[in-house]
Amino acid sequence: MAEIPLAPIQRLIRKAGAHRVGEDAAAALRDYVEKECLEYASMAVELAAHAGRKTVRAVDIDLAIRR
Amino acid sequence: MAEIPLAPIQRLIRKAGAHRVGEDAAAALRDYVEKECLEYASMAVELAAHAGRKTVRAVDIDLAIRR
Repeated sequence: MAEIPLAPIQRLIRKAGAHRVGEDAAAALRDYVEKECLEYASMAVELAAHAGRKTVRAVDIDLAIRR
Repeated sequence: MAEIPLAPIQRLIRKAGAHRVGEDAAAALRDYVEKECLEYASMAVELAAHAGRKTVRAVDIDLAIRR
């Protein structure tokens, strides 16, 4: 089900200043961020269709995020 | 600079119903999501320190997201 791998999420938590990162922490952040991604992506798909396109473009993502 | 690869983000946009995904779209969503990740991770690092821990745990991430 999950698409985003845990390793980059762990690196981001370390970049944020963590000494150590629990495995459960990376999974929790990944799950949340992946849900957010799907919500923005769904909005972007609707916005692309609204603009008469079959291709989702950055302008659709940008507008989805700003809404 | 970017940690999260584009391929899983493209798959998520397709899961959301996209026929085609522009490369710029995946990059835009990745950049946004990665920024969000760093913000939540920074909060979580502070919350772990506040609880006297050096390890960031899921409870820190959860509280950071709920705040």
